[in-house]
Order: sequence, then structure tokens, then C-alpha cells
Amino acid sequence: MFGSRQGWREAPYVSCPAEPAALARGLVSAALPDGGAMQIVPGVSHVDEDGVPDVMRGEETQIAGLPVQPGRRFVVLPGTHSKWALCEGETLVRFASFMTGEVFAVMAQHSILGRLFVGEGIDADGFARGLAHASRAPERQGGLLHRLFSARTLGLFEAMPAASLRGYLSGLLIGSEIAEAIALFGGAPPDKVTIVGSGALTGLYEQGLRARGVSVEPAPPDAALAGLMRIAQAARLIS
Amino acid sequence: MFGSRQGWREAPYVSCPAEPAALARGLVSAALPDGGAMQIVPGVSHVDEDGVPDVMRGEETQIAGLPVQPGRRFVVLPGTHSKWALCEGETLVRFASFMTGEVFAVMAQHSILGRLFVGEGIDADGFARGLAHASRAPERQGGLLHRLFSARTLGLFEAMPAASLRGYLSGLLIGSEIAEAIALFGGAPPDKVTIVGSGALTGLYEQGLRARGVSVEPAPPDAALAGLMRIAQAARLIS
Repeated sequence: MFGSRQGWREAPYVSCPAEPAALARGLVSAALPDGGAMQIVPGVSHVDEDGVPDVMRGEETQIAGLPVQPGRRFVVLPGTHSKWALCEGETLVRFASFMTGEVFAVMAQHSILGRLFVGEGIDADGFARGLAHASRAPERQGGLLHRLFSARTLGLFEAMPAASLRGYLSGLLIGSEIAEAIALFGGAPPDKVTIVGSGALTGLYEQGLRARGVSVEPAPPDAALAGLMRIAQAARLIS
Repeated sequence: MFGSRQGWREAPYVSCPAEPAALARGLVSAALPDGGAMQIVPGVSHVDEDGVPDVMRGEETQIAGLPVQPGRRFVVLPGTHSKWALCEGETLVRFASFMTGEVFAVMAQHSILGRLFVGEGIDADGFARGLAHASRAPERQGGLLHRLFSARTLGLFEAMPAASLRGYLSGLLIGSEIAEAIALFGGAPPDKVTIVGSGALTGLYEQGLRARGVSVEPAPPDAALAGLMRIAQAARLIS
């Protein structure tokens, strides 16, 4: 990332709770060769009650670009390291990351699970069965370390077509993320979440959320640009 | 494996509950070039109440080689795909696999987590902190998809030395396996488990189990050989 420690110039994390004005105060200016200056938006960090930090970089700008709503709102940003953010009005109160996308990629490519996979697509039936398996109680199915193995044994026993196994793993992981997030943010599924992103991945999350009784509101497609504008306004760089 | 579908000759799985006599009945004979015959021990399968199969191949022989105890006993076999087996007398009643070892390997080698790791060892302090993090409640820390990210952020925020991060991931995963297995096998930790194996990995599991109040009894080091003898006796191949 541009503003990460390995990026062009580091923009240190701003702590939660963070509203657009806090992001504006955290802007880092970098000189351009032509004498101008560029502003880098900081990432956001949150340290939980056990002292464990969490970070986002980029998603805070998308969140800042959402139309402001009164009261509490959950924002879900699917991806390699998915984020669930709890907002109040325009303030990002706290958030949590989930390694869902990366666990899917490394298990599919580098573990024994991928050896039985056929094709590249996410099969709808496999995905639905993975979601269902993720929703079973821990006293019935343990947690992810046990459940992951089912993506092998169902194939081995021909209890699922090989073409469905990749979709099954995807459903199992996305469903597990949703179950984890529900536990982490109060135990009961929220009535509604705002989902940021577009395309196939967002559609899979919508399916998983609806299966848990959560209604889904899509974010406007220009949330990142709107967020940059909102932060620039808060910094009085534009009016 | 020798008797797997990709092996030399397939020895089909025997279903749980399985005692040494059932393994003996499942022996598959393979002709040797010199006119003799070799016996291949079958693996064991278990289909759970949700219709999801689980498999072991090799561990059933180690379990068959344990000194028989009256009543219920838990046997833990750490590894790439760790097994927890519930036995009654000499019968393997049911079991569950956990992808702990493989998840550790692929996340350390192929995910963003490994990029901050320094050295190859399992640091004791990191391991203990990982165990502690695994023992926290889901409503406090979610599940594995969220917790895994802490192995990055603790390093990123220098809240843990880089040399401890590999041990932290190991403790987090072994501790998660133990928590999953406790949930899966009745909710309360068993008083005692028998652990099969030797060396550093077994020691890490012992530490994790003791931290949950479970006492650990090591299996005799020759359990696999004793299991082969026991199965051969049940098959009347030897007396």
C-alpha cells in the first residue's frame, strides 16, 4: 500500500473511534517532483479489550464515503482480509479483520484440499452446502480446523461432486466468517449490513448473510472516491 | 499411503465402531513377487450425524497397539491432520480430524503471516501467548479466521517480538484444536488423554492440554508395532 510502512511514505494509523475529521488530521503530505504535494490518507487501527491490535488501510476511505446514517450500522468489506466495521453516524467505532480470502487461496492452492478440486468456478450447490456446514453448532462440528477436513472427505467418499468442492470451501469459509462476526459483535445477527464491493464475491457474501436472516444494503459504487472527497473537505483542502 | 486409493493396493476403510478384530477382517492380501503374500491394514472411517465422513489411515494401528484400558478413553494423535479418537476398551468408537499441522504449514509458508516470521523455532513465550489467545471465548475473539490475523498485527505493532510469532501461530492453532475437540466431544475437557507420538510436537500438545486441565498419559513408543501384532493375532496370522 501507498501509505504503509513498505509503501512510498508511511501514514501512521489513526486509532478508533475515527470519523472523517480524524482521518483528515492524520493526512500525510508528500512532496511531488513538480513542487506540488500529495496527501496520503492514514489507515485505522483498533486495539481490542485483550490488547490485540487490528488494522485497515483503504477500507476506512470507503467507509468515509458511505452516505451518513443516524445510529449504529455494520459495514462488511469482503476481501483477502475481510473487514466488519461498526459505525455510529459518521464515526468508525471499531472493526475486526478476518483472513477469509487468504485462507481460501492458500488452502485451495497449497493444501491437500485443492488436490481434489476440478475447475475454477464457485459451484452454487457446493457453496450452499458449505454455508450450511458453517452454520452448525461448535458442539456438533467443532470449529474450522475440523470442518476444513470435510472439503477433502466429502470428495474422497464421493459424497460431493469434485466440481462442487471449491465452492464448498468458499461457502464454508464465508459462512464461518459471518458466524464469527455475529459472535464477536454481540451474538445476535444484525438486522441489516451495508456491503462494500461489487461482483461475484459480494454476491456470495449477500447469499451467506441472507441465509442468516441479515438483510443487505449495497454501498454506492463510488464509495472510495466519495470518501476521498469527504476527507479532503474535512481537511479543508476542498470546499 | 500403501493401502490408499493412490497406494499400491487399496485396502477399503472399515467403519467405526472398529476393534482390532474388525481391522483383521478388513486386511487385504497382496501377492509378493517371491510367491508370498503381504497383508495391508485397512484405514478407518466415521460418518458423523450430519453425514460428513472422516478418515484415518495408520493411526488405527497405533490405537490398536495401546494397552487396553476398561471404559472410555481419549487418544490424541498430533500431526498434519491431527486425530482425536474416543475408545471404549479396545473399540475405536468415533474420531475427528483437525487440519492443524497443515494449516500451520501453509499459513507460515504461503500467507502474509509468514512474512514477519524470523527463525524456524517455536518460541516458548510466543507459544504460550498463542495458547492463551485460543482459549478466549468466541464472543470475545470470534473464531480462527479473525484470530489468525493477530499473528500479523501483533508483529506489525511490535507487541510481540518477530522471533515469537511462529510460536504464537503454533500455540494459537494447537490451542484452537484442543478447544474444538473439547466442544465436539461433550463440552467439558476430559480428565485425561493418551497422546501418541514423541518429540517436540507431542510436547507442545501436552502443554496445551495441561493448560486446559487435562492430564496427559504418553502412549508406549512401540504402539504401531504392537498394533500390527494385535491385528495379526486377531487375524490368526500369528499366535
